[in-house]
Amino acid sequence: MRATIMPGVHEVRIDNVPDATIIEPTDAIIRVTRACICGSDLWPYNGGPNVEGQRMGHEAIGVVEDVGSDVRTIRRGQVVVMPFADSDGTCLFCEEGLQTACVHVGFFGNGKLDGAQAEAMRIPMADGTLYPLDIGEDDALMPSLLTLSDVMGTGHHAAVCARVRPGGPVAVIGDGAVGLCGVIAAKRLGAEQIIIMGRHSDRIALAKEFGATDVVSERGEEAVERVRELTGGFGVQSVLECVGTGQAMDTAMAIVRAGGAVGRVGVPHYEVISGAQPMFYGNVAVAGGPAPTRAYIDELLPEVLDGAIDPGRVFDRTVGLDGVPDGYRAMNEREALKVMIKP
Amino acid sequence: MRATIMPGVHEVRIDNVPDATIIEPTDAIIRVTRACICGSDLWPYNGGPNVEGQRMGHEAIGVVEDVGSDVRTIRRGQVVVMPFADSDGTCLFCEEGLQTACVHVGFFGNGKLDGAQAEAMRIPMADGTLYPLDIGEDDALMPSLLTLSDVMGTGHHAAVCARVRPGGPVAVIGDGAVGLCGVIAAKRLGAEQIIIMGRHSDRIALAKEFGATDVVSERGEEAVERVRELTGGFGVQSVLECVGTGQAMDTAMAIVRAGGAVGRVGVPHYEVISGAQPMFYGNVAVAGGPAPTRAYIDELLPEVLDGAIDPGRVFDRTVGLDGVPDGYRAMNEREALKVMIKP
Repeated sequence: MRATIMPGVHEVRIDNVPDATIIEPTDAIIRVTRACICGSDLWPYNGGPNVEGQRMGHEAIGVVEDVGSDVRTIRRGQVVVMPFADSDGTCLFCEEGLQTACVHVGFFGNGKLDGAQAEAMRIPMADGTLYPLDIGEDDALMPSLLTLSDVMGTGHHAAVCARVRPGGPVAVIGDGAVGLCGVIAAKRLGAEQIIIMGRHSDRIALAKEFGATDVVSERGEEAVERVRELTGGFGVQSVLECVGTGQAMDTAMAIVRAGGAVGRVGVPHYEVISGAQPMFYGNVAVAGGPAPTRAYIDELLPEVLDGAIDPGRVFDRTVGLDGVPDGYRAMNEREALKVMIKP
Repeated sequence: MRATIMPGVHEVRIDNVPDATIIEPTDAIIRVTRACICGSDLWPYNGGPNVEGQRMGHEAIGVVEDVGSDVRTIRRGQVVVMPFADSDGTCLFCEEGLQTACVHVGFFGNGKLDGAQAEAMRIPMADGTLYPLDIGEDDALMPSLLTLSDVMGTGHHAAVCARVRPGGPVAVIGDGAVGLCGVIAAKRLGAEQIIIMGRHSDRIALAKEFGATDVVSERGEEAVERVRELTGGFGVQSVLECVGTGQAMDTAMAIVRAGGAVGRVGVPHYEVISGAQPMFYGNVAVAGGPAPTRAYIDELLPEVLDGAIDPGRVFDRTVGLDGVPDGYRAMNEREALKVMIKP
């Protein structure tokens, strides 16, 4: 079968690899019907720590082709969402709805588990990992359903961790796909003022359609000043940090108001959270991490199905497997917002 | 009138100062009937940043002696709890129950506002600040009521910020008065396993009476190891950080489990929160700050009045004003846990 490999910096290749097969009796094999390229895939693409020859991709919808002998609930032929992490579904963390801390957790496309930018995948712990959908594999809602694998659930996690609540002003740092989904999440949780912080006009336009009420395109000190102006001098109740750089985190801490919270979902490329003292005196909370997207599907799926939210609009390009290398380039050059793959 | 002054390191003096008088029409004057020495008073005592000649003390119960012309709800003769911060009671932060972020907040005994270790005090914004009690000034419950001014409310804040919930294992770092009140708070919020981390045998004994189920007297790596042993290898759901040193915070971050929270109320003597990446991958939350003790009185007072909680047991010595300097020495040398003052 064919799969996406990243042999090195700025190199993406579609290779023939051994077919995905059942190894453990709790495995399932899915034929990937939709996958995508994630902003976080650009970190290794640009030289972050990566595994040589790593299989790429961690977001997928697929059709179950085969199941191991111990798989109990997932069945052949089901259309399933594959969250970006696998999970056993039974440990204390899974029971609490934090599948990304499962005692058996793994992350797809990280060098150990199969990558989603491929024709097929082996899914460990299929019952705990996969979320079956009662829908045809070519349904028009596929783009939005695909975001439940990662970006919509991650934007929602940012909003939950930032304690978005009705009325409270919100800022979303980052106008990538996760930030845009964060806008959707903040709006559906009742935020009335949603400030999108970014500088790409097409993304800002989409953010406004999703519910952003204000735009801050400045950076650093100027951005902080602008947010304060927009919030009566107090800053925002909730910050959704959807970038992951130290600068983004510093901005988050500077624009959050006393008693507010920063929900961070951008994979952190910084070692410490600075400003431990002002954070304390302001009773500011910092939370967040890898989103338990598996848990959030229950809440988000009905709104995707009834059209109340339409996060699939973050996809602005669709490619086949052969188009994946150029998809990376296009996303890296900010020519595409988010690339969907039909393998 | 007489008041406690701190002219310099390890110097505490009782001086004659001008009588407290109404300055603003929203002021009240209270005659202090109970005050105490706080662990945080030991930071300036030992050379932390302090104001030369600073009036000391920020915890008090008193009797209202006079009120300004614009005071509406507080009346002469009322027995009142004075939270450690003043607050207007009307701004958006006060309305949210975060009086320590009031737009007009001040902190007693910090060089600007009067100190509580004195015969009397001027209380700004009396209606927003003072909490009237329907009780006699010499009631036997006075020690416990006095803790509502700071340490019991602060221990409760640590527990709230650490998201203590029924069942979840909890660790309390620090066996000072706040840590001990944190044990009370964790217990009343339903924690079943409460690990007290400290090394003073008398305090540990009291922690056990308050509800601690396990004791960890080690420090650093050994302490982390012990907590893991006690929690099935996972660490605790909630950490109440009641010390404020960088080492205590590092321990907190090392013993919290994935999805857990650190509630910090120890005044931080560190600049950054380290471990931003493991904190992220574990979806750990950090929250906390100066406790809005004013807000918490509503919840805690009934349990003090009916004897369900008895935080006043943290006081193990009572002095008059003349005994205050020796009280500081005794607390600093860990000879006394917490000193009550009857001016």
